[in-house]
Order: sequence, then structure tokens, then C-alpha cells
Amino acid sequence: MTSTNSIRARKTLDNIQPYSPGKPIWEVQKELGLERVIKLASNENPLGPSPKAVAAIQNGLTELNRYPDADASVLKEAISSKYNVTPKNVITTNGADELITLISEAFLEQGDEIVVPSPSFSEYDFGAHIMGASVVQVPFGEGFRYDVDRLIEAVTEKTKIIYICSPNNPTGTHIPKQDVEKLLNAVSDVLVVFDGAYSQYADAADYTDGMEFVKAGYPIVALQTFSKIYGIAGVRVGFGVAPESIIQSILKVKEPFNVNALAQTAAAAAITDTEHVNASYETNKSGRELFYRKFDEMGLNYTESLANFVLVQLGPDGEKLYQELMASGIIVRYGKTWGLPEHVRVSVGTPEENEFFIEVLSKLMAKQA
Amino acid sequence: MTSTNSIRARKTLDNIQPYSPGKPIWEVQKELGLERVIKLASNENPLGPSPKAVAAIQNGLTELNRYPDADASVLKEAISSKYNVTPKNVITTNGADELITLISEAFLEQGDEIVVPSPSFSEYDFGAHIMGASVVQVPFGEGFRYDVDRLIEAVTEKTKIIYICSPNNPTGTHIPKQDVEKLLNAVSDVLVVFDGAYSQYADAADYTDGMEFVKAGYPIVALQTFSKIYGIAGVRVGFGVAPESIIQSILKVKEPFNVNALAQTAAAAAITDTEHVNASYETNKSGRELFYRKFDEMGLNYTESLANFVLVQLGPDGEKLYQELMASGIIVRYGKTWGLPEHVRVSVGTPEENEFFIEVLSKLMAKQA
Repeated sequence: MTSTNSIRARKTLDNIQPYSPGKPIWEVQKELGLERVIKLASNENPLGPSPKAVAAIQNGLTELNRYPDADASVLKEAISSKYNVTPKNVITTNGADELITLISEAFLEQGDEIVVPSPSFSEYDFGAHIMGASVVQVPFGEGFRYDVDRLIEAVTEKTKIIYICSPNNPTGTHIPKQDVEKLLNAVSDVLVVFDGAYSQYADAADYTDGMEFVKAGYPIVALQTFSKIYGIAGVRVGFGVAPESIIQSILKVKEPFNVNALAQTAAAAAITDTEHVNASYETNKSGRELFYRKFDEMGLNYTESLANFVLVQLGPDGEKLYQELMASGIIVRYGKTWGLPEHVRVSVGTPEENEFFIEVLSKLMAKQA
Repeated sequence: MTSTNSIRARKTLDNIQPYSPGKPIWEVQKELGLERVIKLASNENPLGPSPKAVAAIQNGLTELNRYPDADASVLKEAISSKYNVTPKNVITTNGADELITLISEAFLEQGDEIVVPSPSFSEYDFGAHIMGASVVQVPFGEGFRYDVDRLIEAVTEKTKIIYICSPNNPTGTHIPKQDVEKLLNAVSDVLVVFDGAYSQYADAADYTDGMEFVKAGYPIVALQTFSKIYGIAGVRVGFGVAPESIIQSILKVKEPFNVNALAQTAAAAAITDTEHVNASYETNKSGRELFYRKFDEMGLNYTESLANFVLVQLGPDGEKLYQELMASGIIVRYGKTWGLPEHVRVSVGTPEENEFFIEVLSKLMAKQA
């Protein structure tokens, strides 16, 4: 009998660190015996799911014994009509993180390189590691601003993909439109993946979600998600918009039924739910401004954000404060995984959640002083 | 500006053929202008989803703005308690086809080989092709019976995985328990993936779903799905049960939120829905027997099946009859993709659907004669 230990995973997977998600509310409640716990750790929509999406799910429950539509035709139609592209320019996925994996599987060989801003979303690295590719990290400039020249300089003959996350997770900073154009014109034979997961919260005049460059025919995938402003992280839908030849390549590695039937229905409804999107945008904008004002009052450094979270520097006691926030029932994301041990990233919540967070943090900071 | 055509997918993906799913009912209705269309093409549960699963989804709609539990802890608890293993022996996936891909990503390198019975489920090949591994096909013996000696002989130094699908899709035949044991003891350093997607329909005394061999510590993954007898193909849940070290390796390549929140809830409820499972089993058993009786009357060869479908040989006009069934509003799966141009695979439906299929087929066969 063969020992199970003789079945070894691929060597290259040694590079993979397990993803550490924000702790679920129930887990913190259970561990700490707390009644009120708020989660400002995963950049979720505090207003809840799009009501149109929930209604669409309720109407789709009888046919669950059937496989989903492998082409996601209704959802693709809704997406392409919103962005004024054709369904052949669209791929839908089981959350945007599946799209990142599929792009990696489609284009990366052992020994290839990807260029990523640092710190940024860890799933870019995950995709590269699965395929045995290397990750070239390009640090942000002052104030976590994008430095497009550094990105361009990092490109070598081995580079297959450049990731741009804008607004960037976890910094909230963006890459100006003219810098995207500069980057696209400066590199050859490199696919640019433009992660616009937080694009609907962005309100800078020089912001782009990358779609205009797809339409101009550049080799770029504009990545989007239904997990943020549309509020349906639980059902898992992401999508990419790109020139058709690139979509065709990614489709080759996609499993046929990757997006479940309820997710397809929910997303097609959510994308038309302007009322919910607008309310989410406004709640977020005023929440961010409250945070800025209060952080200023507390004398804390923070980075102005175009997204639904703010990166704030709590100081040398960052880890302790993170733990104390948790003990008070507030889950935020600690910055150590991004090499920022003095920082936490706090998602903008409901007005009540934001007030509670500020109240607790103020008390903790006062105790510090 | 770089042309999008200069962005080429990995060479090894040239081997991948796009999956051809059964046509959806609405598509056939639209194309052929038919009012009544029944789908007996995708081995779905004709009784519909588990009512317990549907109720569970209805109760889980408010929190969809939150990411799913990355550990799927409630679902894993339900699965491990059913099979009397620990949650560390379980991995849950976005349908069983995702599990096949993850196993491929975890264990297959370029140049490796997998051994698969032929004809069988095409997703095994898909996983191998993504990783640049080769597929060694082992034909069935007489009457599509498993020939374990041929499987063992096909193993080389390059073999990393042997797939066993039992009951096998599309033949409905199974591998006897003693042959599984013989195989496991004959090979070294090879992972056996035992696909028991249709196990709940199997009623042979020498049938195994592979779980006993997992518990005995063999290097085997027992793969299962919620898309068949549990009737929730639409929400996408599969799972694997295996020794812990093997689960750990597969977890390395899993995305954190691969199983959506509603699917977790639905599956945890469905697995306890004995009433729905029993009714589905009985409906299927009597449907299969009706098919056998009627096929005998029509003088058609068929393979006795332990699953929820029957492979039947319509003869040299197989393709024409498949098309004529479609034109009459009955979607079955044509056998050509499995190298069986005289066969179709028909899923067992409701009693009404089965009668309608038999009625239409009888008329078509009579016209032939």
C-alpha cells in the first residue's frame, strides 16, 4: 500500500501562502463572547445586497436542479449593454479572484514574470505562484501614489502581465488616466490587467476604470466585481471586459458552469439597480469624510482613498490597537501582511458603524497618549 | 501600441476542446419554436431541488453583502458527520468539476500522465490539458465493463493520477469493490480520484463509493457532488473526501471564496434531506426499469446502469434520430463526442417525461423499420 505521504504536491506550490480572509463576525463573537461585533475588514457594502438582486434570486429558486447557463448569456448581455461592448468582449467568473486565476492559467508559463504594485491585492501573486511564474513587486511612491515610470522600468523580456489595481487595495490610491495610456504605449507584448473592483466609488476627474482602453483595442483586461458596490459578495460574481481574442484565450481554461445560476440572476438585476448603487456611493463618500475629519482630530496619518476603505497609520502600537479594536467588537484588517505593521485598513460602514468605530478608536488612542 | 494578437495563450492550451454542455431548454424552444421541450441530457434531478435546500436559501438572503465563510465550516461539518470523517478530510468546491481542476493544479506537472477510463467524463482531460499533462485512455471491456488489469497496465513512471468514475458517465457501469482494492494495492505513488457523482443511485452489492478506502488511509480522493441526487446543480457544490495530507495539498490552490454562501447553506440542508433523496432514488430506479423494458421491446441494445441515465444504441441512424428527438422537443446527449456515433445517453426524468420520450422514440424507430 502506497503511503499518502508519497503523493506530493507540485514543488512550485511551496511559494503559496494561504490567503487570510477577514474573520467572520460569528467567529469573533464566539471567541470573545461579544454581543455586538461589526466587521469593517473586507470592504463589503454596509447597506446590504442590492434589493433587486435579492428579488431576482427569490424568483429563481425553482429551477435549481438545472445546471446554470454555461454562457451566462443574460448576464453578459446586461454587462455589455452597460459598458457598450459586445458579449464577446465579456467573461463572467466565480468572483473576480477566479478571473485572476484564469488569466494566470491562460497566459503564464513557468519562469515568466508578472509586475505588481506593492502593496496590493494578494490574489495576483497567488495566480502567478500556481503557474510557477515570479512576482516582481514595484513599490508605490510617496503617499502610496502610483509611479508609472517604475512600473515601466520593471518590465523585462519575461514579463507577461502587469497588474494595476485602481483604486488600489489596500491604499485607496489610483493611477491617473494619462499614466495608464503612457504605460500601455510603453510596453510591448504584455497584458495589462486593470482591477477596477472599487471603480464605482472613485470620484477623481483623472480616474479611469480601464474600459476606454479596452474599446481602443489595447491588450488590457478591465476586471470588475459584484462584491463591492453591488453588495453581493456572498453569491460570487466577477467579470472581465477585454478585446475578443483575449477573452477567447481565457475562456479556454474556464470551467463550463463556473458562475452559479442565482449569481447570474442576481448580478443581472444588480447592475441595473441605480438606486442602490447611488445610495451606496453616497453613504461611502460621507463615511470616508467622517473618517478623515476624525483621524485629523486624533492626529493620525491616513491616505485619502477613492475606494470604500481607508488605510490609516495607528503608529508603533498598531498591532496592539488592532487587537484592542477586535476585543471591543470591531474587526478591521491589520496591515502587517502588506508590510505595514503600523497601519490598519478600515472599511467604510453604515453611519452607525462608523461612529462606533471612531468612538472606540478615540478612546483607545486617548489611553495611548 | 501592442496588437492584442501578440498576447498569446500558453501553447499547451491548444489541446483543450471547449466543453459542450447539453442545450438549455429555452434555447431549443426558441430555435425550434416548440412549446413543450424536456431535457434528458444533463443527468439532472427531475424532481427538482431538495425542498430543504430551497428553504435554507430563502433564509440566507439578507447577508449576501458578506463574503462566504472561506472554510465552509457548517457544510464541512455536515459532510464529515455523514461520512464519519473529520472536517480536515473534506474540501468543498464550486461543483465537482472545480475539484478536478484543483487536483490537476495541485499534482500535475508538464509531461506527467493521467490514466482515465474511456469513454468517461471529459473534465478529467481538461484538468490535465491545463497543466500540460498527457491523457492515457483505457478502453472499457465488453459491455463497457471496467477492466482493472488494463488500468493497472496503463500506469507508467509518469502516471500521477488514475481517474475512476463509478458509476461511469456515460456508460452507467461500475468498478467492483474488490477491483478498487486490487488497483490501489497494485500501484505506487499514484493518486486515485474516485468520482462517485452518481453513487447515490447505485444499487449493486459490490458497489463502493470509495469512502472506505479513504478511511483505510489509501491515497484516494472520493469525489462527490450536490448536482445529482440532491438536485442543486444550479448553485454549484462538489466536495472531496481524502486523507488530510492530500486535502492540504489541494487547499493550496483553492481560492478562498470558491463556494458561494447560498450554495453552502443549501448543500448543508440537502445532505440531511432523506425524504427527497429517497424519492429521487425510487423515481430513478423505476424510470430506468421502464427504459430497459421499452428498449427491449424496441430491440435496442443498452447498458444496464447504476446511475440516473442509460446509454442506448440507436443504430447507424443515431445522429438522425438524435436530431429527430430534438425536433420533437426531447433533448438527449448524442454519443459522438465519446466515439459512440450510434448511441445516445438519456437521463431518467419524471414518469411523464420518461413516457413522452419512449412514445416519441417508439414512433421514430417504427418509421425506421
